[in-house]
Amino acid sequence: MDAVRELSASIMTLVLEMLGHSSERSPLPKQEGTGSYTPLPEMGKTRDELLRNIELVVQESMNPLHPTYIGHMDSIPTLISVLGEWISSSINNNMLSLEMAPAFSRMETEVIRSLAKRFGYDDQAGGVMVSGGSLANIQALIVARNHFFNTKDEGLTHLNQKPVVLASEAAHTSIQKAMMVSGLGASQVISVNLDHHGRMDVQDLEQKVKEEKSKGRVPFAVIATAGTTVTGSIDPLQDIANVAKKYGLWLHADAAYGGALIFSDQYRSRIAGIEHADSITFNPQKWMYVAKTCAMVLFQKRESLIQNFRISAPYMNESDFINLGEISIQGTRHAEIFKLWLSLQHIGLRGYEQLIHHGYELTAHFTNEVKKRNYLEVACEPDVNICCFRYKPDQVPEEQLDQLNQSLQQTLLNDTQTFLSFPVFRGQRWLRAVLLNPFTTEEHIQEIFRQIDQFHQELYG
Amino acid sequence: MDAVRELSASIMTLVLEMLGHSSERSPLPKQEGTGSYTPLPEMGKTRDELLRNIELVVQESMNPLHPTYIGHMDSIPTLISVLGEWISSSINNNMLSLEMAPAFSRMETEVIRSLAKRFGYDDQAGGVMVSGGSLANIQALIVARNHFFNTKDEGLTHLNQKPVVLASEAAHTSIQKAMMVSGLGASQVISVNLDHHGRMDVQDLEQKVKEEKSKGRVPFAVIATAGTTVTGSIDPLQDIANVAKKYGLWLHADAAYGGALIFSDQYRSRIAGIEHADSITFNPQKWMYVAKTCAMVLFQKRESLIQNFRISAPYMNESDFINLGEISIQGTRHAEIFKLWLSLQHIGLRGYEQLIHHGYELTAHFTNEVKKRNYLEVACEPDVNICCFRYKPDQVPEEQLDQLNQSLQQTLLNDTQTFLSFPVFRGQRWLRAVLLNPFTTEEHIQEIFRQIDQFHQELYG
Repeated sequence: MDAVRELSASIMTLVLEMLGHSSERSPLPKQEGTGSYTPLPEMGKTRDELLRNIELVVQESMNPLHPTYIGHMDSIPTLISVLGEWISSSINNNMLSLEMAPAFSRMETEVIRSLAKRFGYDDQAGGVMVSGGSLANIQALIVARNHFFNTKDEGLTHLNQKPVVLASEAAHTSIQKAMMVSGLGASQVISVNLDHHGRMDVQDLEQKVKEEKSKGRVPFAVIATAGTTVTGSIDPLQDIANVAKKYGLWLHADAAYGGALIFSDQYRSRIAGIEHADSITFNPQKWMYVAKTCAMVLFQKRESLIQNFRISAPYMNESDFINLGEISIQGTRHAEIFKLWLSLQHIGLRGYEQLIHHGYELTAHFTNEVKKRNYLEVACEPDVNICCFRYKPDQVPEEQLDQLNQSLQQTLLNDTQTFLSFPVFRGQRWLRAVLLNPFTTEEHIQEIFRQIDQFHQELYG
Repeated sequence: MDAVRELSASIMTLVLEMLGHSSERSPLPKQEGTGSYTPLPEMGKTRDELLRNIELVVQESMNPLHPTYIGHMDSIPTLISVLGEWISSSINNNMLSLEMAPAFSRMETEVIRSLAKRFGYDDQAGGVMVSGGSLANIQALIVARNHFFNTKDEGLTHLNQKPVVLASEAAHTSIQKAMMVSGLGASQVISVNLDHHGRMDVQDLEQKVKEEKSKGRVPFAVIATAGTTVTGSIDPLQDIANVAKKYGLWLHADAAYGGALIFSDQYRSRIAGIEHADSITFNPQKWMYVAKTCAMVLFQKRESLIQNFRISAPYMNESDFINLGEISIQGTRHAEIFKLWLSLQHIGLRGYEQLIHHGYELTAHFTNEVKKRNYLEVACEPDVNICCFRYKPDQVPEEQLDQLNQSLQQTLLNDTQTFLSFPVFRGQRWLRAVLLNPFTTEEHIQEIFRQIDQFHQELYG
């Protein structure tokens, strides 16, 4: 036990040191790396060698703990979620079955029931945790596919017509992945136009449903996004639900990001209508600050999940409790519920509400600074804590803007340690600020805009 | 920082206490649980409340750290893998892209390359880590499906004939799940007979391939298992590879468990032929003692993975390095490579070899004890560190044996804290010992058989 204690203490010192100095490491290291990760030494290394190697790896890693790492939906994790991982990894339970994870299986079921209620679902709802939002979207689409076409046992080959799904241009690429995985084909996602807010254009949705039908294809699902990847836009869920109902489509809400608004009395109306969705993807690993991965897929009718997805395992024991491995796309699975549950226990509902409101306040401040400057352009009004904008001085022709903005992105990273990401939206490059980090302050934002002003001054001042 | 330090120190005390007393907690608690996991408190709880709740959860969890927890392929995790999770969760990198996980993306690529070589693959091989073996099997079968039927973009609906795959009766249920998920249908797995070792009967395989073809179906893949779930049997890989080659089938080797034999010079011949597999599932979360989940899918030709699975993401930056999120069934993903890499660094190749040999020694001892007793029956000769047996006294008719063995299983659990699992094999219930835990000794085994003898004495002595 002494060796266990010593190694644990060394790692604790290292982690605390790392946390205490996270603002001194670049938010984004060089991607080339310096070290080689030759993995297979003949003999085990000493503790000191291990610690040196670990420090090197940390230096070469992304640093989302930096207060001006504001580039992606990758949050600084709650302390309790990280410590929770230590505990749950130590006892190494397996979410495959109740026998192998008695406490965590029940915990997951209960937490999912509570969250489903906050989404407006009733007692018939259910769901399962999965390791990331892509798996949640994949599993939801497969349940929808099996529900519509009875393809669970016999597969798709008997279908005479092509099933298609509809999603906005800004929907996540995992929708294509889900269609590819499920055998429906990556190209069978019909792209619905965006309105000027970056949200799904519902008139275009209805138009395209009709078009697809007239072409002899079978639209069976529509995917609404609550918090798109680039701009964080929230599709008009109630209107989309109406179209889904009218045409008998499965409605899947990809609320991986925006689902966290269930914790805000002030902003939850932005996802009103989500209770009509047949399935919901929600990722506490994003706006709930739980260490990744932590994601789930919810179903309005748990019975639909069971009927359309369950594969029973003969080596598991029977009981009234359906083993979670039988209704998940995964089998053996880590108890990711524990870090979510602990975070809820430690932070509480009011704490989450405050975190969300702080993000909105920073975003309003940030967006206001963009709008003050006629050489900056905002992509659309933020629906969540994301401001997507670009540098667009009058003197510069459109075709040079991408390169100019990349230059600004690099300058901000090198000169002020600010990491904004550089995504494509409506065919152009934009700078994206995701104001997730609770340690980001208005002063940090002021400093970013001072640098942007200076960049502009030097070029066109 | 003081609060961070205090909470971390409290959790460390709790974890060390838990590790130090793991043999005092039952290997398997009551599954009913006592606590309620009401997840949504208005206000955050205090540190003391949190710690009390955590202790309760640990009490109600499966305890694979117990030296006579020998029921499942769920190992006691390496200390460094658990501590590694603490570090990687703290920096919360995202395997979606090189930008969001610069060190870990390269580390994963390098480690996979090294392991692929140990499996006998050449430089053209590649792969990706996934959160659990089911996902590995699913991804492999989808790559095989797209490779054979060109279904990536357009899906399956154009196929006129039914694709089927072949796997032994003892193959993992995730093969059914993979077929269901991929749109080929859960029932389209053709079951191949077992020989008396619990391994795939290769004559029956060839026979069934011919039968399926003659029925107008299209066998396109065979799944060989290296380490079946119940008995740990290793299918004859070389012979299966010959059949696969003869009939142009994709060969997938599910070496989730047995793949670890690449670390043993003495036993690696048991998986000879695996280098002919087009894809391999390997789970370091099992016999490499890495905290779960830790699994991977390898491909003999990395190019096949890319061509048949890649979905490009427009919001990621271009570079020569293909972002791992584009070639994985997951998107956002935790850096599970780190705990594997650290375990390899800490334990070393020779260390893993010793762990594996220790398991074989214990298994030989265990199996010998079974064979000594005429009222015990072994299911088949162990290929790995698993002994599957049952209590079969002459006096008891076959139809009562399941219940009698369950009674023995419960007695061992309640009286000697020994957890053997109770799976179905060839239509009957068996007691399964998975001799993974390095802290299990021959004395523990002696004690188990003393209890079995006593059980027998009391009933039929």
